Amino acid sequence: MHALKVTRAEDFPEWYQAVVREADLAEQSPTRGCMIIKAWGMGLWERFVAEMDARIRATGHENYYFPLLIPLSFFAKEAEHVEGFAKEMAVVTHHRLKQIEGELRPDPEAELTEPLIIRPTSETIIGDAFSRWIKSYRDLPLKLNQWANVMRWEMRTRMFLRTAEFLWQEGHTAHADEADAMEETMLALEIYRSVVEEVMAIPVILGEKSENERFPGAERTYSLEAMMQDGKALQAGTSHYLGTHFAEAQNIRYQDKDGNLQLAHTTSWGSTTRLIGAMVMVHGDDDGLRTPPAMAPKQIVIVPMLRGGPADAELKDYCARLAAELNKQNVFDTHVRAWVDAKDAKPTDKRWDWVRRGAPIICEIGPRDAAGEQVTYIERTALREGEKVKSRSVSRADFIAEAPQMLKAIQKHLFDAAEQRLSANIRADLRSWEDLAAYYGAGDDESEVKGWARVAWSKPSGMALEEVGERLKALKLTIRNAPLKQPSRFGPCVFTGKPGVEEILIARAY
Amino acid sequence: MHALKVTRAEDFPEWYQAVVREADLAEQSPTRGCMIIKAWGMGLWERFVAEMDARIRATGHENYYFPLLIPLSFFAKEAEHVEGFAKEMAVVTHHRLKQIEGELRPDPEAELTEPLIIRPTSETIIGDAFSRWIKSYRDLPLKLNQWANVMRWEMRTRMFLRTAEFLWQEGHTAHADEADAMEETMLALEIYRSVVEEVMAIPVILGEKSENERFPGAERTYSLEAMMQDGKALQAGTSHYLGTHFAEAQNIRYQDKDGNLQLAHTTSWGSTTRLIGAMVMVHGDDDGLRTPPAMAPKQIVIVPMLRGGPADAELKDYCARLAAELNKQNVFDTHVRAWVDAKDAKPTDKRWDWVRRGAPIICEIGPRDAAGEQVTYIERTALREGEKVKSRSVSRADFIAEAPQMLKAIQKHLFDAAEQRLSANIRADLRSWEDLAAYYGAGDDESEVKGWARVAWSKPSGMALEEVGERLKALKLTIRNAPLKQPSRFGPCVFTGKPGVEEILIARAY
Repeated sequence: MHALKVTRAEDFPEWYQAVVREADLAEQSPTRGCMIIKAWGMGLWERFVAEMDARIRATGHENYYFPLLIPLSFFAKEAEHVEGFAKEMAVVTHHRLKQIEGELRPDPEAELTEPLIIRPTSETIIGDAFSRWIKSYRDLPLKLNQWANVMRWEMRTRMFLRTAEFLWQEGHTAHADEADAMEETMLALEIYRSVVEEVMAIPVILGEKSENERFPGAERTYSLEAMMQDGKALQAGTSHYLGTHFAEAQNIRYQDKDGNLQLAHTTSWGSTTRLIGAMVMVHGDDDGLRTPPAMAPKQIVIVPMLRGGPADAELKDYCARLAAELNKQNVFDTHVRAWVDAKDAKPTDKRWDWVRRGAPIICEIGPRDAAGEQVTYIERTALREGEKVKSRSVSRADFIAEAPQMLKAIQKHLFDAAEQRLSANIRADLRSWEDLAAYYGAGDDESEVKGWARVAWSKPSGMALEEVGERLKALKLTIRNAPLKQPSRFGPCVFTGKPGVEEILIARAY
Repeated sequence: MHALKVTRAEDFPEWYQAVVREADLAEQSPTRGCMIIKAWGMGLWERFVAEMDARIRATGHENYYFPLLIPLSFFAKEAEHVEGFAKEMAVVTHHRLKQIEGELRPDPEAELTEPLIIRPTSETIIGDAFSRWIKSYRDLPLKLNQWANVMRWEMRTRMFLRTAEFLWQEGHTAHADEADAMEETMLALEIYRSVVEEVMAIPVILGEKSENERFPGAERTYSLEAMMQDGKALQAGTSHYLGTHFAEAQNIRYQDKDGNLQLAHTTSWGSTTRLIGAMVMVHGDDDGLRTPPAMAPKQIVIVPMLRGGPADAELKDYCARLAAELNKQNVFDTHVRAWVDAKDAKPTDKRWDWVRRGAPIICEIGPRDAAGEQVTYIERTALREGEKVKSRSVSRADFIAEAPQMLKAIQKHLFDAAEQRLSANIRADLRSWEDLAAYYGAGDDESEVKGWARVAWSKPSGMALEEVGERLKALKLTIRNAPLKQPSRFGPCVFTGKPGVEEILIARAY
């Protein structure tokens, strides 16, 4: 018996939707392809924002806010960029509604002379500002960040993973030369790694995207790839060196020390609400989400076993004091986040609510605990012993003193388990196309996790790369990235048999 | 000589635009009616968000996120509501662009069957969710908040004060009955008062809006009114008791303890980036903004007087240590925010940048300060002595120890000055329409501040109220609110001569 009606082994996609729903993360909205992010889901996102924002600021970036709507003509300037996004743009064409024949409709007299696009990303409008703000080498580097909603009209959506509207952070910077811009590109990647691995407890592999997977208009794109429990890959953030493409399209030039006019080199990098979906698929189990303590809006939830009698007041008081003491403890460079759930609901219902949401530690405090100055608790990552829920009781003083250490141990446990899964599920022994086809082409046994393959290739480009892409697509595979860490020598290219020059990761992906 | 090219006395609206520009708050964007919020402006907004969010959470609200786009049909359900917003709605009609005759245009084949509206406010889509989430009295009260961007297509825009897109917080709650909903409505008003007065140092008068100034669809609307330096009023937040209007339109019903189906009573309340504009107009002077220390992203800016020589390293080190020591001090329930401006620019340019942005304390540290373990500083609120900039030098130890007290004194000084201005500029002696017309109708001498009038009225409604509105409009006046604090007896109504039943504030307004 589990807290969810469907298990990962039975139906992974259904299980994912069940966790999103049952853990109070999000639900479908009446607006097609958009979701309503609910309290626990929003709490997770806000924790992510706080951690990411602190690192972005600490490395010299400042937050700005640019308009939601971008004039259509701005997109026409960078050909690859518009081609990449034109098919998924939400277009504003009118600025007023009117009652027409008894129906509320866009007022034909309020049609815009130039349509406006809801930003799918902001390179164009921020590049335009850069062209006004940057005059001299003294203005460089210019490093800014924006927290915003963006919209990409997706036909098939899945909550958090692919939604028409999503929330994100987009960094945009301008530099004097390629070296400085590349340093920034890699700095952003490291910021992402730090939050995703150290806070979200999701191990990732950093690497460069292949030419056909680059951001539209980028010179080089780097990604973090994470492995879900079904073996699929999920891109957990990207960082782009844009070269001088956008600088040329938008005239971002500066006077160097010798008085010569130079094109700036720009970067952009983004991380999104998608990562909440990744967290579910990396850490969830058949009882719901298991939230890494560093991410949990509430790390220790205290449920008083209220009985509607006169003893309740004392019990509530005991719980409130326990929470206050816990909140004075420190962990992960800030105070512990403990909280009493005093809602008007059955204690067992509350327990299971918090199990599904994945609060790291759930305390259930009855009158006997209060009288004996003790704490009875469940660790979400060690929920069961066989079929039974495993709770422990310790003295109040010990629990308070040990809580930070327990939270750290849970954080480490989740990361270690995910890292073990990642390394155990990367095949390095598929050395030819036949090997790949035999492994990935075999009839899908749903219970078998088909992870990633790390293979050598000759790094084809243009048409030859497209052909590789087609072959992979037939096996539902894509190239994820060429990991930054490469061996010193390579086997032959699995696609062409030519000498390999690089190793890449291939995988099925979200 | 002042740091801005235009003074308040010369041209208040021009002066306002100059502060917004010169203090790095915002600039016009290429998207009509929308602004780019720049680093210092965004820093102020983020401080506002942090303070407001903490109070909203502490009173039992949770953050959610609802879609940016709302189906058109949702607006048709509440007649007054749609009438209030239809004229300023940005309408999305297509979801793809296409090259047509060599031009990028909305693809006619990608026209939406139902247009989507960029949210001007979210009562309709949140009410729809309430109708699904609320089943029993146990689900009430339901108290949520959203931080979001919204869009109202304004014809005449002014940065921060009136922009097509703005950032805001919108609270939405549902309750079992009117009493509980009204308590919530007043709680929100008190949260706003607390942030606006105690953090932004802007004194306000709380009161109820007259019938013709209510939020579209509300039963009662309450506002905070602040006085700008030109005597005009600015609405600094509103809180609405929506009665059962939205509950009826959207079928928000719950089963009470006796098993009967009841309509929920809802509230909504919002505060916006407008308040940054209010802060400028309340605290700015002819040298730029004066930021209240509790709001300032950087409270103490330390400018090292670098000379490009070998002594610079030592000087920078002295400044860094000073900042670190200051940041260990506490003020306003958190640590002091001190920061070293080590940018590659002339020290005097930096000084004036920070004067215009209104950093509360600006330190200028030269080699002699470092050698003598002292600090030379300017207080932004006591910038000049006659024509000269007034700086002081004190020992490093004293400066560090006294910094919190200095910041508190500056905060109090700004609030007190604004409060004195507010009370000095409310006329309580205009007792008839003739008095009002004589005062406000007299030729405008630009140097004279025409503040507000507090007058008795008979609280007309319907057509009679409209007529009062027309008479006021001829004098460019509006009714601001009926203050919560009322006297026990009233003079005759200034509009009708009938017995007064209430006092109201009338004013010119933003």
